[in-house]
Amino acid sequence: MLNDRFIERSTFNIRHSTLNIPLLPTPVFLVDGSVVQRNCDRMREKARASGVIFRPHVKTHKTTEIGRMQHGGAIGPITVSTLAEAELFAEAGWRDITYAVPIAPEKLERAAALASRIERLNVLIDSREALQAIEQSGHVFDVFLKVDCGYHRAGVDPDHPDSERLARSIAQSPSVHFQGLLTHAGHSYNSRNAEEIRRIAGEECAALSRFRALLGMDELVRSVGSTPTASVVESFSDCDEVRPGNYVFFDAMQVAIGSCAIDDVAVSVLTTVIGSYPDRNSLLIDAGALALSKDPGADGFYGIVCDESLQRLPLNLTTISQEHGKIAGNVAHIPIGTRLRIIPNHSCLAAAMYDRYYVIDRGAVVDEWKPARGW
Amino acid sequence: MLNDRFIERSTFNIRHSTLNIPLLPTPVFLVDGSVVQRNCDRMREKARASGVIFRPHVKTHKTTEIGRMQHGGAIGPITVSTLAEAELFAEAGWRDITYAVPIAPEKLERAAALASRIERLNVLIDSREALQAIEQSGHVFDVFLKVDCGYHRAGVDPDHPDSERLARSIAQSPSVHFQGLLTHAGHSYNSRNAEEIRRIAGEECAALSRFRALLGMDELVRSVGSTPTASVVESFSDCDEVRPGNYVFFDAMQVAIGSCAIDDVAVSVLTTVIGSYPDRNSLLIDAGALALSKDPGADGFYGIVCDESLQRLPLNLTTISQEHGKIAGNVAHIPIGTRLRIIPNHSCLAAAMYDRYYVIDRGAVVDEWKPARGW
Repeated sequence: MLNDRFIERSTFNIRHSTLNIPLLPTPVFLVDGSVVQRNCDRMREKARASGVIFRPHVKTHKTTEIGRMQHGGAIGPITVSTLAEAELFAEAGWRDITYAVPIAPEKLERAAALASRIERLNVLIDSREALQAIEQSGHVFDVFLKVDCGYHRAGVDPDHPDSERLARSIAQSPSVHFQGLLTHAGHSYNSRNAEEIRRIAGEECAALSRFRALLGMDELVRSVGSTPTASVVESFSDCDEVRPGNYVFFDAMQVAIGSCAIDDVAVSVLTTVIGSYPDRNSLLIDAGALALSKDPGADGFYGIVCDESLQRLPLNLTTISQEHGKIAGNVAHIPIGTRLRIIPNHSCLAAAMYDRYYVIDRGAVVDEWKPARGW
Repeated sequence: MLNDRFIERSTFNIRHSTLNIPLLPTPVFLVDGSVVQRNCDRMREKARASGVIFRPHVKTHKTTEIGRMQHGGAIGPITVSTLAEAELFAEAGWRDITYAVPIAPEKLERAAALASRIERLNVLIDSREALQAIEQSGHVFDVFLKVDCGYHRAGVDPDHPDSERLARSIAQSPSVHFQGLLTHAGHSYNSRNAEEIRRIAGEECAALSRFRALLGMDELVRSVGSTPTASVVESFSDCDEVRPGNYVFFDAMQVAIGSCAIDDVAVSVLTTVIGSYPDRNSLLIDAGALALSKDPGADGFYGIVCDESLQRLPLNLTTISQEHGKIAGNVAHIPIGTRLRIIPNHSCLAAAMYDRYYVIDRGAVVDEWKPARGW
């Protein structure tokens, strides 16, 4: 359910109040609605001022509530990572969706059914085989060609002659409306500072512009997007559309690489100390791999350990198993029953561990949001 | 729902038939019911022949269907990792449950409510503070004292004088029925061969026996359990109760450390190739961190890559992001649309990513099981 209070307001200062939620059983996933709102407002304003299409990714939060916040309280273009997300948002009124994972041939029927219910479902391909699967499906699809800008996960090499041939085949296919070129600078996550991210942001746009110029198809949308690159640039240029997603929550990883400040992180896992072992300088908490997910940080730890008011503590979350987290440091003053908050390393994965988020405002729970699940 | 076919049979040979499940949208979690049955039968028989109490852990599968298979089609003592699991099983008729994570003071009320509905809910403590919380709760609990046998995650040091004092306080507390000593040799997961695991198995039991002898309380149950130690020993000795859990599914990690053969692994993630890049020797699959969880294997990869018939392929799953998996190797012969199966590194975490398991028998889906979720 949309919480109007978060839509209307744009500035808050509540991070360091004491959390007043004694009744929540731990572990739980807390979302600070005001921080999400601020993150959403900043990115949307940057896109507006830059004059680009804003098509934020919803994969990090998977909720219609935050989907609206990303567009200032309205429904607008979005990017999704699963057809389950696309269907949830379509059901709730969204009409313009890009499914930004190369589509498997087996998913074309389901995608076509969804596309018929909304204005546009863009799908992603990066091979002649995928184009042929679309042509054999009996449906017409809006298509983006995925281009590799250096991440080397998916996408065609913009400098390889086969890529140009594929683009021209897509443009000529009667089964396709060729909408544009799409890339994702996922390698920006491996950066160590904002300067490095800025360099990758430049390459991200340049790869698409160079390839589009080669094709001579100026009508193609150049769609870029990763939270690191979208966060560090002052404005968007040399592209037509941006698709950041993680920025709504941010996380410890984004803090570490310089995409945001720690106060910009909107999420934390509330946990309880269930073991205290001063003799071996360790604590046990009831948040393990199923509460935090398991991306190690650049420092090798599993999140930032904070007190209940989100003040960082000089402790390290060194090991996580299924339902246990082990914290190292001087723990003599921290008894069993103490509540801590862990800022997760990777909020996209951590959020997906939960069936509901508890939305907090000034230390109190004000709402519960349920994310899409599965595929 | 209990599938009687799996309860009745005990031997199967279906692993290398072709999978006949074209309609399942990927990624999905496949459970080979016959392999689970065989794993369950073996461990139960070993416990029976050894004359120990068999209290298998249900945290790996979290389903009542497999909970029954662990006890030969019947309801019996179990171990759980969350109160949500305990409540699901209690609702389905289970009566004797050990909650094997040190209990947070805040969870005592909920645990007491559950305990009042069944015959016994054992809770775990390892400190004077936790004992005091129980004494202040107004309820009487069945309690195990957690003992550290070398894993150093939780539990008291059996050789420290404070531990003996705590045990005597528990024995004298009017709020407690002191049931036994419990340990978990989690460090067995770091072993590299069966011989090393056997040594740890011996230490696991010895720690409890030594401590119980010191206390002179022969009535205390000595409860041990980890899948590596329980799998490699020929019989259980020097203990009274065993609690393995992962053995129902096993996984790539257990294969690597020598707990089982690859044919003993009962689970896999069915996935589709969504990108094929022979020029850069890589494939993209639609199973990422949300489909596989993210425990890296000893080899640094994210699972064992197999074809649809579960024959291992000479390919490595090198990188996973939220919804993408990147496979390296000679992929020239593997087109988009090909189905692969990934044996996950850590089945406890991978299974928890799914709202349902597809149960297969002779390559066909015969049932769907829904695991407990959350806490």
